Amino acid sequence: MIFDVAAEIDYAVGFRSAMILSLHAQESSSQKILKEEFSIEPKVAFTEFRDDHGNRFVRLDTANRTQLTVRYAASVDCIFDVQRADQIAATPVTALDHPAVPYLFPSRYCQSDRLGKLAWDLFGNLETPHDKVMKITEWIHDNVDYVPGSTNAVTSAYDTVTQRVGVCRDFAHLGIALCRALNIPARYFTGYAYELQPPDFHACFECLIGGNWMVFDATRLAHLNGLVRIATGRDAADTAVASVFGSVNPTRMKVSCDLGRNQHFVPIRSEKLGPRGVSIAASAD
Amino acid sequence: MIFDVAAEIDYAVGFRSAMILSLHAQESSSQKILKEEFSIEPKVAFTEFRDDHGNRFVRLDTANRTQLTVRYAASVDCIFDVQRADQIAATPVTALDHPAVPYLFPSRYCQSDRLGKLAWDLFGNLETPHDKVMKITEWIHDNVDYVPGSTNAVTSAYDTVTQRVGVCRDFAHLGIALCRALNIPARYFTGYAYELQPPDFHACFECLIGGNWMVFDATRLAHLNGLVRIATGRDAADTAVASVFGSVNPTRMKVSCDLGRNQHFVPIRSEKLGPRGVSIAASAD
Amino acid sequence: MIFDVAAEIDYAVGFRSAMILSLHAQESSSQKILKEEFSIEPKVAFTEFRDDHGNRFVRLDTANRTQLTVRYAASVDCIFDVQRADQIAATPVTALDHPAVPYLFPSRYCQSDRLGKLAWDLFGNLETPHDKVMKITEWIHDNVDYVPGSTNAVTSAYDTVTQRVGVCRDFAHLGIALCRALNIPARYFTGYAYELQPPDFHACFECLIGGNWMVFDATRLAHLNGLVRIATGRDAADTAVASVFGSVNPTRMKVSCDLGRNQHFVPIRSEKLGPRGVSIAASAD
Amino acid sequence: MIFDVAAEIDYAVGFRSAMILSLHAQESSSQKILKEEFSIEPKVAFTEFRDDHGNRFVRLDTANRTQLTVRYAASVDCIFDVQRADQIAATPVTALDHPAVPYLFPSRYCQSDRLGKLAWDLFGNLETPHDKVMKITEWIHDNVDYVPGSTNAVTSAYDTVTQRVGVCRDFAHLGIALCRALNIPARYFTGYAYELQPPDFHACFECLIGGNWMVFDATRLAHLNGLVRIATGRDAADTAVASVFGSVNPTRMKVSCDLGRNQHFVPIRSEKLGPRGVSIAASAD
Repeated sequence: MIFDVAAEIDYAVGFRSAMILSLHAQESSSQKILKEEFSIEPKVAFTEFRDDHGNRFVRLDTANRTQLTVRYAASVDCIFDVQRADQIAATPVTALDHPAVPYLFPSRYCQSDRLGKLAWDLFGNLETPHDKVMKITEWIHDNVDYVPGSTNAVTSAYDTVTQRVGVCRDFAHLGIALCRALNIPARYFTGYAYELQPPDFHACFECLIGGNWMVFDATRLAHLNGLVRIATGRDAADTAVASVFGSVNPTRMKVSCDLGRNQHFVPIRSEKLGPRGVSIAASAD
Repeated sequence: MIFDVAAEIDYAVGFRSAMILSLHAQESSSQKILKEEFSIEPKVAFTEFRDDHGNRFVRLDTANRTQLTVRYAASVDCIFDVQRADQIAATPVTALDHPAVPYLFPSRYCQSDRLGKLAWDLFGNLETPHDKVMKITEWIHDNVDYVPGSTNAVTSAYDTVTQRVGVCRDFAHLGIALCRALNIPARYFTGYAYELQPPDFHACFECLIGGNWMVFDATRLAHLNGLVRIATGRDAADTAVASVFGSVNPTRMKVSCDLGRNQHFVPIRSEKLGPRGVSIAASAD
Repeated sequence: MIFDVAAEIDYAVGFRSAMILSLHAQESSSQKILKEEFSIEPKVAFTEFRDDHGNRFVRLDTANRTQLTVRYAASVDCIFDVQRADQIAATPVTALDHPAVPYLFPSRYCQSDRLGKLAWDLFGNLETPHDKVMKITEWIHDNVDYVPGSTNAVTSAYDTVTQRVGVCRDFAHLGIALCRALNIPARYFTGYAYELQPPDFHACFECLIGGNWMVFDATRLAHLNGLVRIATGRDAADTAVASVFGSVNPTRMKVSCDLGRNQHFVPIRSEKLGPRGVSIAASAD
Repeated sequence: MIFDVAAEIDYAVGFRSAMILSLHAQESSSQKILKEEFSIEPKVAFTEFRDDHGNRFVRLDTANRTQLTVRYAASVDCIFDVQRADQIAATPVTALDHPAVPYLFPSRYCQSDRLGKLAWDLFGNLETPHDKVMKITEWIHDNVDYVPGSTNAVTSAYDTVTQRVGVCRDFAHLGIALCRALNIPARYFTGYAYELQPPDFHACFECLIGGNWMVFDATRLAHLNGLVRIATGRDAADTAVASVFGSVNPTRMKVSCDLGRNQHFVPIRSEKLGPRGVSIAASAD
């Protein structure tokens, strides 16, 4: 499925700063970049780099600019792999590939170590990892209200589990924390999302189940097969659209994700999956 | 410098569990394993693996054991690289090698995002990254009391900066958080420590300065050139001696780190380094 | 019902300190002191005072003592007032007597302001305040494990609601926080408890419903009609057995609560009350 | 000194709710109400009450109103009592009047129990309680930035001591927490403030020193002798302008505090007091 994604962000620069931007679509076996443009105005020097997980970053020094406009646009071909839940084998911790191990541990916004008893009480009796994650996703959807502006940059899963209000970031953090508490590797996913209303970057989470990183969205705001991956990481700390080292603040942002020409899209929605339905591996990476 | 390290730990197993052990000495260009033994009694199947950072782990399933004794012993040749502080160049964020980037971000126990203003107020005016880290290390030593048993598994840098009491783990977390808040990559270091009293595993931290990961110990309990590295990670969450997925608790632990035969050891101590003295790169990895 | 209560506590004094002790039985229309003894050894000067709520305190200066033994013993006649739940009228906030108002607000260990949505989601649909508190008490009992030593002096309701483990103090704090979040005045109760195993001081909580402060015990460890009140307050911060201003630590403690001679005791237990059963007003104060 | 104070607040009512308003000037021996008007439009029934500390509240039920405008205006004669700091005697805990005792304990936003070591490290060596509080006030002023909108309703002293940014409420909470940690009774003060820019309600704190509650303002935004007291309490939880039990939100607020006719005002400012200067007892209550 081909999507045309774009982002345009204005930044105000308080003083000379460094930035790491993360808005390029990831490139992988399940996500091919057909074409792509990136620019910064006024011009500043920048470098692109990829981390070991395939995330692509742009690093720049604002020099003496006081304002910057960043533009990214791409056509991306995304392959989604739909699986029958009852055919997903559990992967015990002792059989995990080692790159998955850090995703078992607590991180800044996902304090799985503090949610252990609650996670086991609520979800421990479910049989398979897939059942557990489906139920976690449903529980978050049913118990946490999506309220724009209700949380801030320090809100973590430990808060959201009690305060029960948040945005996509908070929903994802709570999902990740609960999964890790149950010994299921879980990571944060950011990307562009087709038909997301209002248009914005989106965050959800992935779990490593049966050898694949399967995507879950407790907000139910995105089509599971309508996601174009930017980055994955332990939580939002790793995958900020802009990590700022100095003083830079966004003043305007425009994000879009449209269907490529001649594409026929049949949405797969979280709420239609059913407890033993299917899930989607957005990446087998 | 050659050290003979050993650890022997008894674990009580509550029910069938998985474990990831981290007590093997790391193997790298600056740390060579001369000989090594590892055993688990009663016998259980286990596998060794290394992560991308050279950390070595043992993964096991306790099966039906109710008690396990884990033994590790090694002779390790450690190369320390002493540098003059005034010759250490600063590395701007825009010039960092990409594997260092995650060490700029907050993690479970090192909430650098919440310590920003304090860090800049206290240390922002110091000229070089090395000066900043030296001063941070000194400040922690002067303001935080080392009290065994004073903290627990959920204590984080955000607590320690105010409560001002802790153990080596807490000293390291606070150092890391303050460094990251100042845009200096910092990571958690665990290892064996020569002449540590009482003998135990030790934790301190490393900062990437001038192209090297340099080691700092705010507890001043270890010789900087008396450390045998087990693992590095974002914080203690990544580098636990035993990450338990189930119910396993240590009941007895014996750790030692002795000088190899015919080794002549001249200690390098944190408190002797001076504000513009030297630091030690335990690894250039 | 007459109870013979006693407490004997040894304290080690680090340096000259002030202390406020709270272990005298409260004196009120529903709790009469028949006889009473109090002593401190070695002798130090002390004064007794009562606050506006009838709590009785002893204030002392340790002077140059390095060790103190405090002894209290009393025979106390407690009147319990059993009510039918379906005859308890709700008291709207606008009709509360003003001394009850502070018990609507959050306090150190009872952050009702952060538990609002959760409290309303879980208990908001129950019809009467009494139903709500009964269900809260049951929910805590069912979801929080009573584990001696599992928490510490900084643990609060905000932690317990997620960590789901604690001691009587934590059970009480969580009950209070949830009630206040639902606009039901709630306060912390400390006292002696008949047949509590192991013998100790006990904490539970009271809610102002239908004009009476009714007692609830989410631990279900005490008989509701086996309680001898020491003090009430907003939370444990107000009612510590010993508030220390300096350095004083308990080294031994012995607490007892026995039935007075010729008393016939028919226990009333939390778990027997039923959702629309009866509750006990230990004080109409 | 006579001040004319006024407040006018519009509230939007989401659904039928109860409210407790706290915007009446307190009446005491040091603060006399010369004249006063209070109204709610559209008309709803309300009752006034006073708590044991002289705080005056208005309690109301919004009934079916969807919008309310509350107006208060008064002329208030405030007596300020200036004292020489070197003549203020210390009051040991053992000599405190009992109503002051709760102000020694931690509260919702003032976790003095967690700030103990920091408080003693920074201020413990100062000789008198007055010196300690003066230095605390200065330290907060020097280390915490006043930034409107930087904090929210859950921000507490434990946060502010590290995050070092806040509004008057946060400055007051931190001052109170540090004082209580040093065994100095401290309470939250809300009121009208002459020449406060921009005009608003103001919060600062009072300490019981030498038998008087003396006022301190770490923001240095108010004249110490330009304050008209509304209420005191343990912290902001006790003294909210509007405590809402339901759904009511302010949509517009206008606050003023002018000098009465023919009054001659000589400001007394925090920064002019000097380390051993004078302080102001706004109330001997």
